[in-house]
Amino acid sequence: MASLHDATRGQLLFGGDYNPEQWPREVWEDDVRLMREAGVNLATVGVFSWALLEPKPGEYDFGWLDEVLDLLHAGGIGVALATPTASAPPWMHHRWPETSPQDKDRTVRTYGSRNAYCPSSAVYRRHADAICAALAERYAHHPALRIWHIGNEFGTVCYCDGCAEAFRTWLKARYTDLDGLNEAWGTRFWSQHYGDWTEVIPPRKVQYVINPMQDQDYRRFASDLLLEGFKTERDIVSARNRAIPVTTNFMGFFKDTDSWSWAPEEDFASVDSYPDPNDPLGACWGAFSQDLTRSLGKATRGGGWIMMEQSTGGVGWRQVSTPKPPGMFRLWSLQALARGADGLLQFQWRASKQGAERTHSAMIPHAGPDSRVFREVCELGKDLLGMHEVAGTEVAAEVAIVMDWDAWRAVELDHQPHSGFKYVDRLYEYYTALWQANITCDFVAPEADLSGYRLVLAPSLYQLSDEAGRNLERHVEAGGTLVVGPFSGVTDPDERIRLGGYPASLRELLGIRIEEYWPLVDGLELRVGSAELGAFTASTWAEWFDLASTTARVVARIEDGVLAGHPAVTVNTFGEGSAWYVATLPDAEALGRVLRRAAAEAGVAPVLPDLPEGVEAVRRGDRVFVLDHRTREVEIRAA
Amino acid sequence: MASLHDATRGQLLFGGDYNPEQWPREVWEDDVRLMREAGVNLATVGVFSWALLEPKPGEYDFGWLDEVLDLLHAGGIGVALATPTASAPPWMHHRWPETSPQDKDRTVRTYGSRNAYCPSSAVYRRHADAICAALAERYAHHPALRIWHIGNEFGTVCYCDGCAEAFRTWLKARYTDLDGLNEAWGTRFWSQHYGDWTEVIPPRKVQYVINPMQDQDYRRFASDLLLEGFKTERDIVSARNRAIPVTTNFMGFFKDTDSWSWAPEEDFASVDSYPDPNDPLGACWGAFSQDLTRSLGKATRGGGWIMMEQSTGGVGWRQVSTPKPPGMFRLWSLQALARGADGLLQFQWRASKQGAERTHSAMIPHAGPDSRVFREVCELGKDLLGMHEVAGTEVAAEVAIVMDWDAWRAVELDHQPHSGFKYVDRLYEYYTALWQANITCDFVAPEADLSGYRLVLAPSLYQLSDEAGRNLERHVEAGGTLVVGPFSGVTDPDERIRLGGYPASLRELLGIRIEEYWPLVDGLELRVGSAELGAFTASTWAEWFDLASTTARVVARIEDGVLAGHPAVTVNTFGEGSAWYVATLPDAEALGRVLRRAAAEAGVAPVLPDLPEGVEAVRRGDRVFVLDHRTREVEIRAA
Amino acid sequence: MASLHDATRGQLLFGGDYNPEQWPREVWEDDVRLMREAGVNLATVGVFSWALLEPKPGEYDFGWLDEVLDLLHAGGIGVALATPTASAPPWMHHRWPETSPQDKDRTVRTYGSRNAYCPSSAVYRRHADAICAALAERYAHHPALRIWHIGNEFGTVCYCDGCAEAFRTWLKARYTDLDGLNEAWGTRFWSQHYGDWTEVIPPRKVQYVINPMQDQDYRRFASDLLLEGFKTERDIVSARNRAIPVTTNFMGFFKDTDSWSWAPEEDFASVDSYPDPNDPLGACWGAFSQDLTRSLGKATRGGGWIMMEQSTGGVGWRQVSTPKPPGMFRLWSLQALARGADGLLQFQWRASKQGAERTHSAMIPHAGPDSRVFREVCELGKDLLGMHEVAGTEVAAEVAIVMDWDAWRAVELDHQPHSGFKYVDRLYEYYTALWQANITCDFVAPEADLSGYRLVLAPSLYQLSDEAGRNLERHVEAGGTLVVGPFSGVTDPDERIRLGGYPASLRELLGIRIEEYWPLVDGLELRVGSAELGAFTASTWAEWFDLASTTARVVARIEDGVLAGHPAVTVNTFGEGSAWYVATLPDAEALGRVLRRAAAEAGVAPVLPDLPEGVEAVRRGDRVFVLDHRTREVEIRAA
Repeated sequence: MASLHDATRGQLLFGGDYNPEQWPREVWEDDVRLMREAGVNLATVGVFSWALLEPKPGEYDFGWLDEVLDLLHAGGIGVALATPTASAPPWMHHRWPETSPQDKDRTVRTYGSRNAYCPSSAVYRRHADAICAALAERYAHHPALRIWHIGNEFGTVCYCDGCAEAFRTWLKARYTDLDGLNEAWGTRFWSQHYGDWTEVIPPRKVQYVINPMQDQDYRRFASDLLLEGFKTERDIVSARNRAIPVTTNFMGFFKDTDSWSWAPEEDFASVDSYPDPNDPLGACWGAFSQDLTRSLGKATRGGGWIMMEQSTGGVGWRQVSTPKPPGMFRLWSLQALARGADGLLQFQWRASKQGAERTHSAMIPHAGPDSRVFREVCELGKDLLGMHEVAGTEVAAEVAIVMDWDAWRAVELDHQPHSGFKYVDRLYEYYTALWQANITCDFVAPEADLSGYRLVLAPSLYQLSDEAGRNLERHVEAGGTLVVGPFSGVTDPDERIRLGGYPASLRELLGIRIEEYWPLVDGLELRVGSAELGAFTASTWAEWFDLASTTARVVARIEDGVLAGHPAVTVNTFGEGSAWYVATLPDAEALGRVLRRAAAEAGVAPVLPDLPEGVEAVRRGDRVFVLDHRTREVEIRAA
Repeated sequence: MASLHDATRGQLLFGGDYNPEQWPREVWEDDVRLMREAGVNLATVGVFSWALLEPKPGEYDFGWLDEVLDLLHAGGIGVALATPTASAPPWMHHRWPETSPQDKDRTVRTYGSRNAYCPSSAVYRRHADAICAALAERYAHHPALRIWHIGNEFGTVCYCDGCAEAFRTWLKARYTDLDGLNEAWGTRFWSQHYGDWTEVIPPRKVQYVINPMQDQDYRRFASDLLLEGFKTERDIVSARNRAIPVTTNFMGFFKDTDSWSWAPEEDFASVDSYPDPNDPLGACWGAFSQDLTRSLGKATRGGGWIMMEQSTGGVGWRQVSTPKPPGMFRLWSLQALARGADGLLQFQWRASKQGAERTHSAMIPHAGPDSRVFREVCELGKDLLGMHEVAGTEVAAEVAIVMDWDAWRAVELDHQPHSGFKYVDRLYEYYTALWQANITCDFVAPEADLSGYRLVLAPSLYQLSDEAGRNLERHVEAGGTLVVGPFSGVTDPDERIRLGGYPASLRELLGIRIEEYWPLVDGLELRVGSAELGAFTASTWAEWFDLASTTARVVARIEDGVLAGHPAVTVNTFGEGSAWYVATLPDAEALGRVLRRAAAEAGVAPVLPDLPEGVEAVRRGDRVFVLDHRTREVEIRAA
Repeated sequence: MASLHDATRGQLLFGGDYNPEQWPREVWEDDVRLMREAGVNLATVGVFSWALLEPKPGEYDFGWLDEVLDLLHAGGIGVALATPTASAPPWMHHRWPETSPQDKDRTVRTYGSRNAYCPSSAVYRRHADAICAALAERYAHHPALRIWHIGNEFGTVCYCDGCAEAFRTWLKARYTDLDGLNEAWGTRFWSQHYGDWTEVIPPRKVQYVINPMQDQDYRRFASDLLLEGFKTERDIVSARNRAIPVTTNFMGFFKDTDSWSWAPEEDFASVDSYPDPNDPLGACWGAFSQDLTRSLGKATRGGGWIMMEQSTGGVGWRQVSTPKPPGMFRLWSLQALARGADGLLQFQWRASKQGAERTHSAMIPHAGPDSRVFREVCELGKDLLGMHEVAGTEVAAEVAIVMDWDAWRAVELDHQPHSGFKYVDRLYEYYTALWQANITCDFVAPEADLSGYRLVLAPSLYQLSDEAGRNLERHVEAGGTLVVGPFSGVTDPDERIRLGGYPASLRELLGIRIEEYWPLVDGLELRVGSAELGAFTASTWAEWFDLASTTARVVARIEDGVLAGHPAVTVNTFGEGSAWYVATLPDAEALGRVLRRAAAEAGVAPVLPDLPEGVEAVRRGDRVFVLDHRTREVEIRAA
């Protein structure tokens, strides 16, 4: 089985999406020359080329692609070759309208954009498989080939009758019989009992709020259905040459595909990441996405990850798409290296002059090579020359944040106590506190092996399996530290609320019993007192609860309002370790104090101590990357 | 004919929606035991049970319901038995897709939620009638049966071709011939003249603004169509046992069903009421809805009302669903008693652990009986034991607020002068001023007998029939006091503007003639001067008008802006009484002054004088309920 | 060929839309009497009369219209007779559902409103042509007839299959073959290559962002398709009497119809204009729309323009539709005269008492003739009696603003760098600065003859043809002054970005080379320093660029942020003239300084110097209109 190393061959990958079909033949030579000038060693080709590779059903035209691959190879540039299946040609949707996806209201999303196909369509599948096979047949042994890039940004969800049929098949596998489905979906309420499998449909447009498990199961199914497509294409291309590793580009915290289930099907992970240059915490957001991808990389068959897409500047899809100021592209690129990337690819090599992404920045901007942007690209290429030994090395983390797509989907179902309570916000608050403290962390699935971590954070792990609950218990029993955030452990994987006092599956571990969740209206801030942590304010969420174990103690207590006297933060001694519970959203500064305290107790230290604000430090292999996100001079002493 | 007394038998009803089918058999025994512990004497059963009662078309399964009713009866608990027709089983919508409602754009609202059926569908009707008949046949003489609860929260509106056909039938009854419709709808404008009945359709999605009478008539029709369904089911169940009173749960100020036309078809009224615990005026909003329901109760065949649904805490559908703080559930419950309720039922008995309403609070919360919430439920149950003699007694009111669904719908049609001018806001402003003054009021339909009232308020009675106009005149002529709010008396029931100076049908009564309505942009406040009332500010709305009668005088006058010098408040002597006109929205404090002045002149006194702010007093029978909505100690002296 | 003079016969037209069919016969006599009292000499008739003129397909009823025209003629009132085709009768849409337009999601906008027909429908076209022919046959020589008014506010866009077919025909004409389309649309990206014409469809609802040229071409097509309808009807009515001039009512800055292509097909221009009385700059907005219409008038076959619709007070469609305060109707009417109108028509003569526009103000309000509004109408009628010699005279302008529908549509396509960057805002900012300086300007198309203008402004002329670029160059070469706004000259008419440094087609003229566009987040203000202009702040947009010519110099420079040191304003000497570039949005005051400086250098003076703020002066013929938009006394001295 191939690995990322088969692609890197020990070198950091540098390059980007290359769409030569947008340009006349004479530009191609220039491209290769400029790629070499910039130190580019990998180009991603073919992502959106289906319509040109197969201009009419069954009629392939690979001539131009032969030429592109040969040219690149002659220039010493490797290729990540994409199966072009994310975007089918107009002829498919025109001849077989059922290959276009339907919305919840059954209206159709037709062609004229991208990534719009019905993933359950047999017609789509047949044509997609055929082009994958033809592509693999032709290029699986091309000397330029380094990576198979399957599809692009998988994420299309469709609600058509074909998907309904596939959904029923998926449900039968999950629940065996209709009784199982009726029980799991709670159909005894609201007269939703199904008497026959044919009655079961996707969560389409309804009068009022949809059945929550119907909703959640459809999200699971939709992710699995797309994953089936990925695996089908992977197998087709891998069958021709098992030495070429396979990946697809994740989108970080993207709700519609459960990356924990995808990662084990890939040879290595990759990600498209576009933090906002206007965001003062843009670097933190970038690190957040990179650390998730590194963690997913660990779950792949071969390990490792690359940045499959980032931008040299602005993107087209933001409300305000400001370019990156001088230096930011280099800084954020080095950050990705620091956090484990073995490759830095940009979307895209040469800025399009036409089409929907004509305003997306590129390595060669519209202004051409004589430009600040291209000069910065070349400088980064030069930087990388001195850093190739970083490739393949590991980033160590003693802290893990539990991240779960089921919890995410479930906590954001309709009719939760606070509809503004968003899962990724909760993760990001905890992550930000660690990032600012220069404490490196991984992300883990709830049932993952936690033995390598001293400190585990579970911010708002709303839906929780029995096994995951026991997993957390084992971590603490064995001496680990755990910090659980609010509204955790509430439901089981079928979105059944666990009864008898929340959070039933974590009650013993945390030494508490919660009677009521108490969301707070916007603008309301509660005073919280704590001898250990100092006073702080809490907002958005609180809970009506008390200790339920003699081993637990209150660390912080609400001081005003209806909940005055109730705990805000508790800690329980459990086995050899300790389990914190943070029942509210402390202000950012206070959350930092909580997590630094827990880290210190767990024996977790920052990468470098006492760094000035805005300086990021990450240890990768035997290097420490120190990145200053402000414009100034600072003196840093090695730890 | 049965009455509420047949249900209460002189006891206050206490209990809630009970959905035992969501729980295993062993929980049922526990439920009955805990109900007895809590003082529960009524359980509403079967609201959402259709799919379990008729798992396949025509195959009924009443076994479990037999058991439930027997168990409840054995425990001394009465039953409000629901026709389960609000939510049809999946098999109906699956087999007969035309039973699912269509939106204005003709897309379908399918199953997977609740309350979604096409109310004109013959297939739906046939199956609904059959299950009602079967249910009645089986349980009409069950000893536990106290109330028939028809459907649930009627309110579904559909725009399908079947409804179009039913609409045409309704229109033929209203207008006799097409000329009548063309004239009433003003189709001579915008080329909308209908040449054939088949051309007439619902107000579906259009290019620009819809014909206003087509819109308003469809709303009337939709309410009537649902009412037909109600009556059909009522007649089916009543036919089996005329001693059981019939109701359906209203939703207070709910635009889609004209409760004045529904009430006379019920034996007594009931309401679902969910004021927001986060709203500082939540108690006022609750009273508002309760007083409307009490007034509707008077219009029923037997009189009286109960609280059919309220919550012990939070609900799922709010943006932020905060629980009720300790004491609030009891306080708001006693308020409903004070305002005439003969029953206090909660949605629901036991908090669901699954389904769309799993986050809605309940009498037994997820935490179980060992909880603050269940203890408060039991305390309230105990409170009620000492108050049964209240059942059936009356709440006296000398003030009436005119409330009209036609006026509501019409004043909120598209293209009114101020699209933020909302009917219920106008009612609520007037109501709040009275509530804060502890003056009890009823609501009345515009053509209702006003002879029992000293003071009548008509806030923004935009659409007005001739008969209603004469009704108001008769009230004043006979010595009553009237306060009319802005933008009243503008159109006739066919939404024809009455010409010659607004408000044509009230001009003589008010002694004024308005030339132009003058909405004010947000944020603009006009200074108003008044020797009698003191200065105040006015916003949102003003009018260009002057007195038109020597018997009228200006009470307050606008002092700045374009309208400077024009009246803001006038009063006219008419017959033996006086008629006030408030042509703007005074600030809340000033509106209180206006209405207290009018009340004083009409000889209307508060229930208790000089109460501290936040203390509510209501006289029911020979009791005065005094409710303090703040946390403190106050001393109240009996009047 | 007929001209506006054939309609005016040297008199200013005064009147409005007259819909007598809404009123009983007896009102008509009264109408004519009151029209005469008000000085009305023109009534627009028949705009929405199709359903009454043809109550059943093919059965015409012209009797009532005969009577109306005869009555008006007897009263000395001329008629603008409308083809009633904007709003087809219910029978058409009922019998032929394909005549109703479809939205992007293929749902239908049905009848019940107005202006909803599929403009490509052959059925619609056949019936529309027939009624036009019948109308023309009957009235083309009626002595009251002064103007043919074709349709009403053309603007309906449909996405049905019939329109798709018509779109393909239009595209074949534009691109000859599919290669041309593929090349222009950039279909080599995102797998959008078309292999067969039948695959090409409108920009319907898609998964993600639509192909930009597909979008823009559809907008061009939709405008052209409507224009075809206009021309068809024009030719039908003109064929019967070539002495009657033809127009249709534009809507000012209305994106969906490219008025530069429409104007040459009309005999004169007309406009519907509804500035907001609540807008402190409402008069400026009115002038903006009037100056555009005057400029369009110059492009018509006969020249000239009239105000086809304005209001005496409020309109129904605003969020808050406040009436015009006393005097404002007269003031704004005289403004239109000052800016070249030969007629002042109102929508509508008599306020409707029914229908969707019942709340729109009128010349006779609901209150009747005894009203402030009607008195003001009569006063204006009297004013006009003394001003008839103004008719047909010209408004001189030495300044032109380049206005382009293609640039508008293109700069507002999806995925631009700043999605809040709106074309008309940019035009209006430049216009406002001139209006406040009392400098009169025309609007011109980018390729129009500029030889009559000293100063040309091109605010954000994003999309630019080669020819238009050369046109601007010629203007400056010949000694003219040019001011170009930000984000100009970026793309060609196929929305291809011109490469090598923006703005490729204006680089030489402006003496600059831009590397990157730099949108600014909301709230960010940059300091800009300038010795010549004084310091100012800039927001929303800036650019990373430098001079690229020795003849250019920096006038203002950014002083803070990432762009510090880069120019904000430059000027280049080119040929005999000078070309300014304003690369940002200066605050309003500063933009005024820039434009006044450019005007002064170009030798352009205000109509009157040193006017108090809020006083507007316009020269028409040998008159100077001086309009004070504030309430006060001012002394103005003739220049």
